[in-house]
Amino acid sequence: MISEVMAQQVKNSSIIRAMFEEGKRLATLYGPENVYDFSLGNPNLEPPVEIKKAILQLLNEESPMQLHGYMNNSGFEEVREKIAQSLNERFGTEFGSENILMTVGAAGGLNVIFKVLLNPEDEVITFAPFFGEYRNYVQNYQGKLIVISPNTVDFQPNLKELAEKITPRTKAVLLNSPNNPTGVIYSRETIIALADLLWAKQQEYGTDIYLISDEPYRELVYEQKEVPYLTKYYVNTLVAYSFSKSLSLPGERIGYLVIPKEAADYENLIAAANIANRILGFVNAPSLFQKVIAKCLQVKVDLEAYNRNRELLYNSLVSYGYSCIKPEGAFYLFIKTPLDNDLEFCELAKKKNILIVPGTSFGCPGYARIAYCVAHETIVRALPGFKSLFEECKSMK
Amino acid sequence: MISEVMAQQVKNSSIIRAMFEEGKRLATLYGPENVYDFSLGNPNLEPPVEIKKAILQLLNEESPMQLHGYMNNSGFEEVREKIAQSLNERFGTEFGSENILMTVGAAGGLNVIFKVLLNPEDEVITFAPFFGEYRNYVQNYQGKLIVISPNTVDFQPNLKELAEKITPRTKAVLLNSPNNPTGVIYSRETIIALADLLWAKQQEYGTDIYLISDEPYRELVYEQKEVPYLTKYYVNTLVAYSFSKSLSLPGERIGYLVIPKEAADYENLIAAANIANRILGFVNAPSLFQKVIAKCLQVKVDLEAYNRNRELLYNSLVSYGYSCIKPEGAFYLFIKTPLDNDLEFCELAKKKNILIVPGTSFGCPGYARIAYCVAHETIVRALPGFKSLFEECKSMK
Repeated sequence: MISEVMAQQVKNSSIIRAMFEEGKRLATLYGPENVYDFSLGNPNLEPPVEIKKAILQLLNEESPMQLHGYMNNSGFEEVREKIAQSLNERFGTEFGSENILMTVGAAGGLNVIFKVLLNPEDEVITFAPFFGEYRNYVQNYQGKLIVISPNTVDFQPNLKELAEKITPRTKAVLLNSPNNPTGVIYSRETIIALADLLWAKQQEYGTDIYLISDEPYRELVYEQKEVPYLTKYYVNTLVAYSFSKSLSLPGERIGYLVIPKEAADYENLIAAANIANRILGFVNAPSLFQKVIAKCLQVKVDLEAYNRNRELLYNSLVSYGYSCIKPEGAFYLFIKTPLDNDLEFCELAKKKNILIVPGTSFGCPGYARIAYCVAHETIVRALPGFKSLFEECKSMK
Repeated sequence: MISEVMAQQVKNSSIIRAMFEEGKRLATLYGPENVYDFSLGNPNLEPPVEIKKAILQLLNEESPMQLHGYMNNSGFEEVREKIAQSLNERFGTEFGSENILMTVGAAGGLNVIFKVLLNPEDEVITFAPFFGEYRNYVQNYQGKLIVISPNTVDFQPNLKELAEKITPRTKAVLLNSPNNPTGVIYSRETIIALADLLWAKQQEYGTDIYLISDEPYRELVYEQKEVPYLTKYYVNTLVAYSFSKSLSLPGERIGYLVIPKEAADYENLIAAANIANRILGFVNAPSLFQKVIAKCLQVKVDLEAYNRNRELLYNSLVSYGYSCIKPEGAFYLFIKTPLDNDLEFCELAKKKNILIVPGTSFGCPGYARIAYCVAHETIVRALPGFKSLFEECKSMK
């Protein structure tokens, strides 16, 4: 008696659930320390100590009615102001509190954006490989997700194909950099070319095309690589940010949207985003954690731990013969599977108690994602399995 | 460039915004202490001290990764178990953790339910007067909200009209008791008759009709009145609960759904609700506050403060000549407006710096809602205004 759309969802999800159950089964069978679960993008680093300090300080300084009460649907004014200032200092932007809307994570923020923008059948374009939830977020509002095929040379977006796929129904282009699942940062050159293309297409069709930047991994960058701030390159940019990864707070559901005043239809965008936040049932981002993150805007988790994992995993896998691009950000490594069929490869990996996600889930068959947000020890112990896995696959060819 | 649906929403909301701005204007003009804002259902009581204690205890006892990390989309197992046990003890039900899904407030829970149940054009029936957001929640999933006209004798639901309006497309009946805006509790007799009717209609059409009970005010009840627990009267009942009012935590967005195993299509309901919670962008209810409320299931705000307001306001208004039913729960009083036109009446009230909401907003013209979750002093100071307002209206007739 559930809806047809959800019946289909339940059917599909049973595959993922089966994988999860399999992981649990393996853990019972061989002991959890002998199962190497690289399947989840779940931060394994402790939140910085500043989080606890901020909570304690707030409990002592503010009245509980202030801390836990309703505020404007867009969030506490002073929190939004602090976020705007922090962005301005770091990226040379000129935001004010009126450009920031606090959301229930980036997932909440993206749902708000799509609710605001999409008429049925409107098109949102994204670049493979991409986070699978994007398809759901767009379909929630009867939009169509159009996928640009992956550029497996360097995993920068394929702009040539983008140019061909933009239509008068293109409402938005959605991108994610540093990228899940590749860890690649879209370069300044890429962004400039992308902005030029979108600008030209807007002129050609007389439409507004929004660039939506999903940025949960913005702070997770190695070797001081630059992640261009997109509002500076293209005015119709909307940013969805989350503190889940940068502060290891994924359960608390805290993030924000940036809606620059230069964006087309700004007044309506911001009014509609406020309403969407309310009527979709979020109402507002959790109040205590709005104030907590406002006190921790300079803070992030200890990136060196992720970096140590990255170096060990990348160098080892390459030495075994795997081919993959070195991630510049996030905590994922995207390998070319030594078998053409990535689903088959991930099944083989499971036989060695290694759980990884087929690239097919990200619109990129022939690859697999390894999430290295795990204990360093887990990587050390899993390496022999990865090695023999590669050799096995080679012998199967 | 925003969607057509949202453009309409922005247009409508400008009226409410205008009211809000007017309140601020009056406060600047006359001083905030001379503006009597009864327009918002925003708890004015402090959260119980146990909330702060629970947070401090959790910060000391649990690892920050546990406290702020991801868990299953349905919420922490031990939290759901505690809620189930608490319901079982209080209402003689037999729930387990598998029947509870933690949500971002009741608003989040209702959106999850409608996402799970509704195909486009499916019908959801509710009883006027009703919380205006219901219309948005149903429309979010292309459903149709069918409104049963108010029974202004005692504000129990009009079951005769319900019988006529149930069709094969009726997917759910949505009710809210204690009711916003009347404060009326739907009696056991009402519930039994409603259950009989729904049962008969299910048989007649060969469909499942879910009864959705929206219960943010369940704990806000005066004179120990009983609020029947609906799953005991009708098996296809789903409950949406919120801690916003009972613990004065509206900003924290914490609530839950109850999905009893006896409900039709239970396995799919619970699987789909988990998925809906994720893909709508909630992902999970905020993690720290899941654990906080699990420690405070026996606690509620000091109801005597609301009761004092209720008694003073009700007795005074009746003595001035207003006609209204005495609320048994929640913190609203729903008066018959002494002018037939409730919009006009609320405008007149504003001239006396009294802000109240026209019944038209709740599908019940000729009435107005007074939210008495305000300082007692505010009521005392507003009474002369209410008195002269009534006399003025009488003289206008």
